[in-house]
Amino acid sequence: MVDLVQATLHGDRRALARLLTYVENEREGVEQSLAALFPHTGHAWVIGVTGAPGTGKSSLVNALAKAFRRRGQTVAIVAVDPTSPFSGGAIMGDRIRMRDLAGDKGVFIRSMATRGSLGGLARATRDVIRVLDAAGFDVIFVETVGAGQSEVDIVRTAQTTIVVEAPGFGDDVQAIKAGILEIADVLVVNKADRPGAENTVRALKAMLEMGHPAAREQLTRHHGQLVSVELSSNGGELWIPPVVKTVAPEDQGIDDLVAALESHRHHLIEARALTGLERQHIEIELYDRLEAALMARLLKAIPGDVLSDVIRRIQARELDPQSAVNTILEQA
Amino acid sequence: MVDLVQATLHGDRRALARLLTYVENEREGVEQSLAALFPHTGHAWVIGVTGAPGTGKSSLVNALAKAFRRRGQTVAIVAVDPTSPFSGGAIMGDRIRMRDLAGDKGVFIRSMATRGSLGGLARATRDVIRVLDAAGFDVIFVETVGAGQSEVDIVRTAQTTIVVEAPGFGDDVQAIKAGILEIADVLVVNKADRPGAENTVRALKAMLEMGHPAAREQLTRHHGQLVSVELSSNGGELWIPPVVKTVAPEDQGIDDLVAALESHRHHLIEARALTGLERQHIEIELYDRLEAALMARLLKAIPGDVLSDVIRRIQARELDPQSAVNTILEQA
Repeated sequence: MVDLVQATLHGDRRALARLLTYVENEREGVEQSLAALFPHTGHAWVIGVTGAPGTGKSSLVNALAKAFRRRGQTVAIVAVDPTSPFSGGAIMGDRIRMRDLAGDKGVFIRSMATRGSLGGLARATRDVIRVLDAAGFDVIFVETVGAGQSEVDIVRTAQTTIVVEAPGFGDDVQAIKAGILEIADVLVVNKADRPGAENTVRALKAMLEMGHPAAREQLTRHHGQLVSVELSSNGGELWIPPVVKTVAPEDQGIDDLVAALESHRHHLIEARALTGLERQHIEIELYDRLEAALMARLLKAIPGDVLSDVIRRIQARELDPQSAVNTILEQA
Repeated sequence: MVDLVQATLHGDRRALARLLTYVENEREGVEQSLAALFPHTGHAWVIGVTGAPGTGKSSLVNALAKAFRRRGQTVAIVAVDPTSPFSGGAIMGDRIRMRDLAGDKGVFIRSMATRGSLGGLARATRDVIRVLDAAGFDVIFVETVGAGQSEVDIVRTAQTTIVVEAPGFGDDVQAIKAGILEIADVLVVNKADRPGAENTVRALKAMLEMGHPAAREQLTRHHGQLVSVELSSNGGELWIPPVVKTVAPEDQGIDDLVAALESHRHHLIEARALTGLERQHIEIELYDRLEAALMARLLKAIPGDVLSDVIRRIQARELDPQSAVNTILEQA
């Protein structure tokens, strides 16, 4: 494992791939590897990309990866599919990507699908990003299907978040949810050669005007008890998410999008917000990890038949769930 | 609070509404009320309804509520919007509903939006369902936007889950995610008077054939460590989700849908699966509650400056997150 860490730090791609597999499988000893890599992290620009299925996220990320490569930056792509533990979705997207970006040593692609719990996936994604960061990638894209919790998880790891929409999804006002707008730093209307693109842009802008500052504030509260730094604590000046039109497979609008992303990064630096953002991410991570560790410890501490006995008594309506929790905690 | 519980059990709607508000706000003493109500639960048929925005979930639930009312059953509707902590979405849907179902004492409607964390919303929803169950409603609909975690949460409370699609969302293969199919007991293609309805039905059936049995198995693993009973442990015979076409505002297909729902309920009873399902729901709930309680206890036990000091050291790369967790747990 020590060799693997050293090789990863020195740019060995096969070592990196193996280490990531160990991270995903929570292989024994991987904690030490992550600890050894940790001092080398904090340099990558992590960009989250989310949006509904069918908006063309994967080809957008491809086009962005090529644009950043042209600028001489190395790129890693983490494709997370939290909705499907088994479908070929992630793998399919990967094959298309492989064909497109194959042979470029400055690009590294990794797909992750749900195995254990959603919480487990979020934790694993965070660790995978960290390994890629330590491995020296300049830009790390984290792409995920727009799906409630996974969007929130993206905000928890990314410095810049892109929300992708496409024309035709917006024929119902409901279809663009305020919940998605809240997390966007940059909005993209992809497939902008389709009819209705202008309508989608207009709808997004209208919703931004309506909801944005309040939304930010709410999102901060959303993150849980530990969070003390505000997402919007970027030195006073508010960032208004720009709306960029793209046609990813034709590279249309990609330069504008890169400019918008860099402008957001600039804004974070100018506003001295990066440190606060990182602190917030660390707080949330610590909270998640503590929760998981506490639960693991408890399950070890109490005999298995205590739990099954309690469940039996709840089902028999002899004991209500909260009283059961109190009883178990007294015994632990 | 004791009076409120008694009044709720005796069908007092205003007492019920007040009690639900207390539950949502986690008002002091509400635990005892929930404990007192608990022996009266376990009789309602909880039906989850999920699907993407714009598929017409709310009008579908309205039409279903009216259909069940015609059959003489009382109906409660819980509308959960996990994507938006502030938007008027839930409330808007509510107004439409109110107009439609107003004046019927056999229908009770409750909207819930995110306030604290997503986990908090799931817990509150579970408690709200339980109160409505104890209050004697025959059928309880839990309606939520199709959004990753919230779908999973629905499966964790409902006996029967409806997944709603609409034509035009399926122009991309990706648009119907296997992850959504996995949780469906009954599939609905709503807005079936729109062009493309037959295509959507065909696509759904094809995906069901491809993925279903494997999907079920995977979903069970998805639920976390405590789960010992399998979702598909319904006595051998596999339930194949039927696909029903509806046009909710015109009551088209609603009788077919009610028949499909009742057939699923019948299947669960015949296969003696209801007890196993309930046991599984209780296991998951116990796990969630233990996690929350452990975390609350820990945060009380450690001084606040320990946490902020640890976070500072992580940010300085002096300490990695997992070692930090180990350190904190040693001190607690």
